[in-house]
Amino acid sequence: MKRPRVVVVGAGFAGLQAAKRLGNRPVDLIVIDKRNHHLFQPLLYQVATAALNPADIASPIRRVLRRQANTEVILGEVEEVDLKGRAVKVDGEKLSYDYLILAAGATSSYFGNERWEPDAPSLKTLSDALEVRHRILIAFENAESEDDEQARQAWLTFVIIGGGPTGVELAGAIGEISRHTLAADFRWIDPRDARVILVEAKESLLPTFGSGLGLKAQRRLEKLGVEVLTNTSVVEIAATFVRVVSDGVETQIETKTSIWAAGIQASPLGKALGVEVDRSGRVKVSQDLSIPGHPEVFVIGDLAVVIDEPLPAVAPVAMQQGRHVAGNIARNLTGLPSTPFAYREKGMLAAIGRASAVAELKHMTMSGWTAWILWLFVHIFYLIGFRNRVIVMLQWAWAYVTHERGARLITGEHRGRSGR
Amino acid sequence: MKRPRVVVVGAGFAGLQAAKRLGNRPVDLIVIDKRNHHLFQPLLYQVATAALNPADIASPIRRVLRRQANTEVILGEVEEVDLKGRAVKVDGEKLSYDYLILAAGATSSYFGNERWEPDAPSLKTLSDALEVRHRILIAFENAESEDDEQARQAWLTFVIIGGGPTGVELAGAIGEISRHTLAADFRWIDPRDARVILVEAKESLLPTFGSGLGLKAQRRLEKLGVEVLTNTSVVEIAATFVRVVSDGVETQIETKTSIWAAGIQASPLGKALGVEVDRSGRVKVSQDLSIPGHPEVFVIGDLAVVIDEPLPAVAPVAMQQGRHVAGNIARNLTGLPSTPFAYREKGMLAAIGRASAVAELKHMTMSGWTAWILWLFVHIFYLIGFRNRVIVMLQWAWAYVTHERGARLITGEHRGRSGR
Repeated sequence: MKRPRVVVVGAGFAGLQAAKRLGNRPVDLIVIDKRNHHLFQPLLYQVATAALNPADIASPIRRVLRRQANTEVILGEVEEVDLKGRAVKVDGEKLSYDYLILAAGATSSYFGNERWEPDAPSLKTLSDALEVRHRILIAFENAESEDDEQARQAWLTFVIIGGGPTGVELAGAIGEISRHTLAADFRWIDPRDARVILVEAKESLLPTFGSGLGLKAQRRLEKLGVEVLTNTSVVEIAATFVRVVSDGVETQIETKTSIWAAGIQASPLGKALGVEVDRSGRVKVSQDLSIPGHPEVFVIGDLAVVIDEPLPAVAPVAMQQGRHVAGNIARNLTGLPSTPFAYREKGMLAAIGRASAVAELKHMTMSGWTAWILWLFVHIFYLIGFRNRVIVMLQWAWAYVTHERGARLITGEHRGRSGR
Repeated sequence: MKRPRVVVVGAGFAGLQAAKRLGNRPVDLIVIDKRNHHLFQPLLYQVATAALNPADIASPIRRVLRRQANTEVILGEVEEVDLKGRAVKVDGEKLSYDYLILAAGATSSYFGNERWEPDAPSLKTLSDALEVRHRILIAFENAESEDDEQARQAWLTFVIIGGGPTGVELAGAIGEISRHTLAADFRWIDPRDARVILVEAKESLLPTFGSGLGLKAQRRLEKLGVEVLTNTSVVEIAATFVRVVSDGVETQIETKTSIWAAGIQASPLGKALGVEVDRSGRVKVSQDLSIPGHPEVFVIGDLAVVIDEPLPAVAPVAMQQGRHVAGNIARNLTGLPSTPFAYREKGMLAAIGRASAVAELKHMTMSGWTAWILWLFVHIFYLIGFRNRVIVMLQWAWAYVTHERGARLITGEHRGRSGR
């Protein structure tokens, strides 16, 4: 008897967990991703701030799944899903499926202001992270060689838009770089003069965390010298400034380096399905994470929203969903029906600079050093690949002792100040 | 009294050694480089073959020199040297000097066939290495998804042009990748079917090494499955083939991945000086490494050739020359004349795949495991920055035990087969 074919689209946290759980099931498993590596996105900001190397937070998908004899990995992009014909189109070729797991994730959203992207890049891929790293490091270099006082200050001003975990962690890391890492490296500027400004439209940072933590995070960031502007919206971004508005008052911040950490939208694959999606393009799925009317198609991770029960777009949700649909497919194979998904909330974490973090657990909140130790172990624990763990641990230990950052590289040739 | 200003152009092995030796001298030292990092070029092939991360073999120049209070680092490109006016032009601005140390190094040379560059990239910068890494890894991916048998074989064929140390080390590493690292990762191809072809125009590999070693290297490469073609010249390179000629017979090798490791030429800055240069653009310098008639201008490293006494373009020569000119400047400051440079030859080394190398020392040659251990310690010893050393050691230890490579990343989005 032919074994049923399960196709997994996307090897992020959700897709990879599903694929791993199906490795010893009687199915033919095909995993498709447009990149060759699984990316540990929660640490992407550390690549962007020169603390880690790209390879430290990425594992080749083939390597992760190589022991699964029933699994094939395809490097390719899914262009279309034919729900009725039960097939996906990958780089022009049709591939039929018996079960489909869609886990194509999300990209950044500029809320209709896509023209801001060149001046305020976001942080979703390794290439993004290297671009942001380049901009941060080159800004200090350009400040050093700039004669005009005003322009110099603009090079030393960093604006991060969005006060969620990524924005908070980025701001903390840039504060750290300017206060410690680079402090002694220049002759004409003092990197400690750098302004790091974090802009959040809501009334406190970390709005998806419980109340109180945002304020704690803000206080810790301010200790690092970061200026936190809450209740503040961005109205315009250009190469040399960011204009914000707060209480109806507009202010223009002169800056040459802005980073966007404000919003995400689901992969366009969701909308292309022709089924119901929400405002940010997420596919509305039933309690068992399948598309209504298509019990053989599951949508999980950032691409999905459970009807009437939206969950945050974080790794734990995606991983639990991946494991859950793998379990449901296994049940279906033995004739049992799918079961509904229930998220087991374990807590939220965000690191703030060196040796400080905020955490919200089930029955308690934490901040400071203890929260940072927790943050450290949770991230090391979930980092895929034994080798990555050892290397990352070592780099963190080194950075902790020396305030150094291992990946301070500006690649490509120097293109002068206009090279921005 | 104003202290004399020493300008160093280029922070490779030569320039950096000079700068370090002048750190405690009564001079104002300015180090100019168009990149922000010193690159440990002998290990560049390991980045190209996914064994190491870019940051493992690069150190920010500012960090290396930060403790030197008399030293300023400028990220910029020197466009012109005015020997008569004793000034250099950096990104449009004039900078005068009392002493000048030119150490701008060399780039790849295609011997007049620059049109080959897009199809056979070379290996001089970190960006080059990442490009080569991308091509090697994507070739296996494309082979996996290729239906046409002939095209698949072309994706699995790798041609390295040039049998010097870089070519030998690259060929060994690609042999290693196909035989071991990737062996179990694919479903439709067997990476062990890959052909790795090393082409050398001279009659043996490693022509700058002593006789005998080239043959030993060849035998070790052949054990790894590498096909070595000596006495063979390249007559044409295109996107899908390399045409070679040997003994008057032309052969066309179908390949989608060629890498150029055949020749170097000095930085154009040498020629622009208006003084005597040799065929590959190297500035002819006197025994004390100064330009004849300009005792205040020294040219060192790959940019220089000592009249009547050409030396190989390797790191030890560059480093010794750097230290020597720093000493000469120190002597001049106290009224003493410059002394002639004498190269203390310590030996030549090349690694071949995993746990094998060839070495030529003063009174002996070595090959195999012992040579590899020597290679390992020499490279670790000279690698700049304690942190880099630890990380690299760890990655090598890990790779040695597991046959894994830590940096198997294809960054950027998958662009399909035509994306080459």
